[in-house]
Amino acid sequence: MNSFGRLLRVSILGESHGSGLGVVIDGCPAGLPLAPEDFEPDLARRRAGAKGTTPRREADVPRLKTGTLNGRATGAPLLVWFDNEDVRSAAYDKLADTPRPGHADLVGRQKFGGFNDPRGGGHFSGRLTAGLVAAGVVAKRLLGEVKVQARLTEAGGLSDIDRAVQEALAAKDSVGGFVECRASPLPAGLGEPFFDSAESLLAHLIFAIPAIKGVEFGDGFEASRRRGSEVNDEILDAAGRTRSNHAGGINGGLTNGNELVLRVAVKPTSSISRAQRTVNLKTGESVELAVGGRHDACIALRVPVVLEAAVALVLCDLMLLEGRIPRVWR
Amino acid sequence: MNSFGRLLRVSILGESHGSGLGVVIDGCPAGLPLAPEDFEPDLARRRAGAKGTTPRREADVPRLKTGTLNGRATGAPLLVWFDNEDVRSAAYDKLADTPRPGHADLVGRQKFGGFNDPRGGGHFSGRLTAGLVAAGVVAKRLLGEVKVQARLTEAGGLSDIDRAVQEALAAKDSVGGFVECRASPLPAGLGEPFFDSAESLLAHLIFAIPAIKGVEFGDGFEASRRRGSEVNDEILDAAGRTRSNHAGGINGGLTNGNELVLRVAVKPTSSISRAQRTVNLKTGESVELAVGGRHDACIALRVPVVLEAAVALVLCDLMLLEGRIPRVWR
Amino acid sequence: MNSFGRLLRVSILGESHGSGLGVVIDGCPAGLPLAPEDFEPDLARRRAGAKGTTPRREADVPRLKTGTLNGRATGAPLLVWFDNEDVRSAAYDKLADTPRPGHADLVGRQKFGGFNDPRGGGHFSGRLTAGLVAAGVVAKRLLGEVKVQARLTEAGGLSDIDRAVQEALAAKDSVGGFVECRASPLPAGLGEPFFDSAESLLAHLIFAIPAIKGVEFGDGFEASRRRGSEVNDEILDAAGRTRSNHAGGINGGLTNGNELVLRVAVKPTSSISRAQRTVNLKTGESVELAVGGRHDACIALRVPVVLEAAVALVLCDLMLLEGRIPRVWR
Amino acid sequence: MNSFGRLLRVSILGESHGSGLGVVIDGCPAGLPLAPEDFEPDLARRRAGAKGTTPRREADVPRLKTGTLNGRATGAPLLVWFDNEDVRSAAYDKLADTPRPGHADLVGRQKFGGFNDPRGGGHFSGRLTAGLVAAGVVAKRLLGEVKVQARLTEAGGLSDIDRAVQEALAAKDSVGGFVECRASPLPAGLGEPFFDSAESLLAHLIFAIPAIKGVEFGDGFEASRRRGSEVNDEILDAAGRTRSNHAGGINGGLTNGNELVLRVAVKPTSSISRAQRTVNLKTGESVELAVGGRHDACIALRVPVVLEAAVALVLCDLMLLEGRIPRVWR
Repeated sequence: MNSFGRLLRVSILGESHGSGLGVVIDGCPAGLPLAPEDFEPDLARRRAGAKGTTPRREADVPRLKTGTLNGRATGAPLLVWFDNEDVRSAAYDKLADTPRPGHADLVGRQKFGGFNDPRGGGHFSGRLTAGLVAAGVVAKRLLGEVKVQARLTEAGGLSDIDRAVQEALAAKDSVGGFVECRASPLPAGLGEPFFDSAESLLAHLIFAIPAIKGVEFGDGFEASRRRGSEVNDEILDAAGRTRSNHAGGINGGLTNGNELVLRVAVKPTSSISRAQRTVNLKTGESVELAVGGRHDACIALRVPVVLEAAVALVLCDLMLLEGRIPRVWR
Repeated sequence: MNSFGRLLRVSILGESHGSGLGVVIDGCPAGLPLAPEDFEPDLARRRAGAKGTTPRREADVPRLKTGTLNGRATGAPLLVWFDNEDVRSAAYDKLADTPRPGHADLVGRQKFGGFNDPRGGGHFSGRLTAGLVAAGVVAKRLLGEVKVQARLTEAGGLSDIDRAVQEALAAKDSVGGFVECRASPLPAGLGEPFFDSAESLLAHLIFAIPAIKGVEFGDGFEASRRRGSEVNDEILDAAGRTRSNHAGGINGGLTNGNELVLRVAVKPTSSISRAQRTVNLKTGESVELAVGGRHDACIALRVPVVLEAAVALVLCDLMLLEGRIPRVWR
Repeated sequence: MNSFGRLLRVSILGESHGSGLGVVIDGCPAGLPLAPEDFEPDLARRRAGAKGTTPRREADVPRLKTGTLNGRATGAPLLVWFDNEDVRSAAYDKLADTPRPGHADLVGRQKFGGFNDPRGGGHFSGRLTAGLVAAGVVAKRLLGEVKVQARLTEAGGLSDIDRAVQEALAAKDSVGGFVECRASPLPAGLGEPFFDSAESLLAHLIFAIPAIKGVEFGDGFEASRRRGSEVNDEILDAAGRTRSNHAGGINGGLTNGNELVLRVAVKPTSSISRAQRTVNLKTGESVELAVGGRHDACIALRVPVVLEAAVALVLCDLMLLEGRIPRVWR
Repeated sequence: MNSFGRLLRVSILGESHGSGLGVVIDGCPAGLPLAPEDFEPDLARRRAGAKGTTPRREADVPRLKTGTLNGRATGAPLLVWFDNEDVRSAAYDKLADTPRPGHADLVGRQKFGGFNDPRGGGHFSGRLTAGLVAAGVVAKRLLGEVKVQARLTEAGGLSDIDRAVQEALAAKDSVGGFVECRASPLPAGLGEPFFDSAESLLAHLIFAIPAIKGVEFGDGFEASRRRGSEVNDEILDAAGRTRSNHAGGINGGLTNGNELVLRVAVKPTSSISRAQRTVNLKTGESVELAVGGRHDACIALRVPVVLEAAVALVLCDLMLLEGRIPRVWR
């Protein structure tokens, strides 16, 4: 459902073209300093603006509606809310009947009996990741010295990302990309056998981010082509230091104290200006659709900060579970 | 923790070299026919025996200790239990102090303060997947006409799997592999926004399987190198049939009615007979370790049926949620 | 935490004297007709105004911020939000240091390290039940023909409730009361062994309502003084009709098709104008406190509609679980 | 469902007349000393034997099947299992068609489509509380100096319990009773707003115990008849000591540091030897049923230790949540 987490639980709500959207963060330790401006740097990273991102401009002013007093978390649920402002649904009107290939338009309609909000993707919109990013800001602060950093390493198969995006724009098309995320320093032992392995929880939350189609840890898929002698990390001392980090910081589902390393595959934005075949649901006719509206040529450009949020939230929940983050922040 | 699932909830318990291991399945519809022999085919697939798998032989006789009467599920929790029989812990004795590289030995010890059961990996052992397979048998039966099938497509980078395993054995080493899983026919709309996307739930459970280091859906990582026009699946009719299936059967986190296609990366078995450096935790000295005991040269050989179980369990839970599987089986 | 429910999950957020408060309802079937005015009748019942209730006046205008479109639920989370308007915190200023006897002031402060919002009880305020009532309106609608009705049967030990309240007011004191709730017609079989018995779930949610100190089903405490032959309900036919309903509609944790009958004990409002001893937390001195501000002489007067909401939410979740409420409302 | 708890999670499984029954305890801190004999005192208290309890004799030998090594918890799930030995189902044969008034026989059959195990109540049997008691033993040990003690204060309306039981036996009838439970010393602040108040969690688990029909905290139902000035506990010092304990140790859903005091209403055993009317489900005829088999004249006699287990489990989970019980026990 729309909630995730055991001790730090986030709930996503809202729609792309409704009154707004937000996130409820339950379980945040009381006393954590939090001001609206703390959210700005990460929200700015997620926000559109660079070439290749949608021209839609949202101020994304986070409103701390509940759960803070005098600049600190109170221990009650935090609601971080964003009003929708730059909403122009007109471009989406025709989409109501002509579902975009690669998008949730049709399945959303099927699942919810046609009652879902189709405007701008509604509750399926990538815009909802603003709430995730806001929750990530809280989680990062709770993580203290643990730094979580993600970056786009490749787009459309090229390490020259600008070139890839330019080419896609020129072709009225879009491109996918790889995003890598690292986190350290981490204690050994985060993760809970059998079903809440660190990889399980991370992948669960990461695959909730729209457009993610693959997740790998450490050597990941490459490890599957190798020998055990190549990917085992030899152990150097009793503290668990290792000669290499092929495992990406996780053994047996538990963090091992090494840097956490994971990579995600971001598919190309589904909405493209180039014509594609779809169906008119009213008439049943096959039609061509060139998606207008405002879209990203490379949604992967905006994924790093969202991925960081997901990783930070999971790590934070596991740290709380281990008693490594206090229930009251002083 | 050791439970997973919302309406069909499985709990894994037991150890590799203790009295036994098992799985509790809660939420199984009453009336489902279940006999011990129903478990045999899938357990046989998981069982060791083929070249490249461990010489440990376990009869793996499933005991339906609770939850059935007269060959049918009663609606109460099912405990499927396996006694451990072929236990030889001697080979593991020295492992207590010399953690195997790539294994959970050291992190398990760190997390549980040295109180974890180290014999044969204890609760971290791949042997616990017998319980998962047993639960998968129940889930597959509940899925009815929906078929879930996985196969090893590549080992050590080779599609000639025998050759890859032979070479690894000869080198006292191990190899990883790719396993692909497909499921169909599936209804459109399985998955729950925002956090319980079909990919999220599947990846959560799949990453609980030991040795899995990557999961991708549809074109997965390859999609990240492509253009939107290449990976969008053009829509053919109002029912949602598409020209292609690059998405692997999932849009916006919901199944779209197409075949579900996913692939996992299985790392090489960590335990190898070839010497590797580790540390003696008692003395603090760096030592060489060649793992004796009985191990798989290619654990990926045994993964397909475990992966099927994971996929079937998630699909089953989502089908129950949609009311597509009755609470009483008649 | 601040969420409850398995298929229909409600999350409470907000504070008495902050920007507002609300409830997130996740899992509401798409298509359910919902307009702001649908909430008015139940909100009016909860609202202050009658003699014996607080003079605080809140318009309690429910804002459907998310999850509806064109007057129907979309299947995405519903946020029903209430802005706080009639906030006068001055009366509470001195309470920050002199915790009210019988209230959460001191324990809230202890639990949250002094960072909790103390104004008007903050997140502990009875005002948060407005969110619960709003969720109850949705649940009642989903329940269709199942009617849930509660009434105050006694206050301060008297069945003449007005008299009890008048006397309490005259004495600058407060009184408690009994509230009885009934629901029917209900199908047999709601409730989930072992831990989610119908009584368990109902009591869980009911005890979240401020001021409730006791819950009993059917003959309840009185049954404990009786013989089995007196409280067993003789069975009349194969459908399960019974001669009596001492069990209050629940056997073995499952509804039995009879009317659900439960009673709750509401303690007297803690805030009274009469002086009581407490401590000044700054000085450590024992002081007398006569609580000003605006309070109810008999909070039990406002409990019935809140209790109905709690009962309706639990029944609704159990009905969804049994597939008796569709996931899409047509 | 059949699991309860957030950090310490118990799962109940098994049947009265099947192969056995047990409890899985997940989340028990590694290192906790546990031997089979530790369970004996509490199991003995639950066991039948005293006048007024069933003549069924079960050795109730707890088998620690998983989760311990060398007399200590390993951190993996504990399975405490009891084989059924003294099973005589014959007496129950006729019950399959003539449901006992006041029992779960008929609703269990309705809910599970007739596939439930009817022998001795199957999964609804009070015998399953042996698993709860076993889990309680673990919880009590984790609670350390916090003592949880329950006692039967009244049976059939009489404080002379022996007399009440004798009279019921003579009348081939049964009687109910009151059980009071107290726990201390407790820290302030256990419980989680809004929905996981201490009362909510305690009542949830307590109402899972068969035959419980009412729960009250502190003055409970009596408080509803009183004035605020009578039931508020005046505060004596900054630590929160109070002049009285009408609240039973809970304010605003949080423990306040005072002794926890709660009382439960246990209804009379449903199975009585005296004839009662029920229906023959096969013929549809109304028949008289005098229940043979082996039953308790006063099941309340055996409730105290079960109630202690429930209370201890909830307190333990809340203490873990507050970091007051370490994740590794040294």
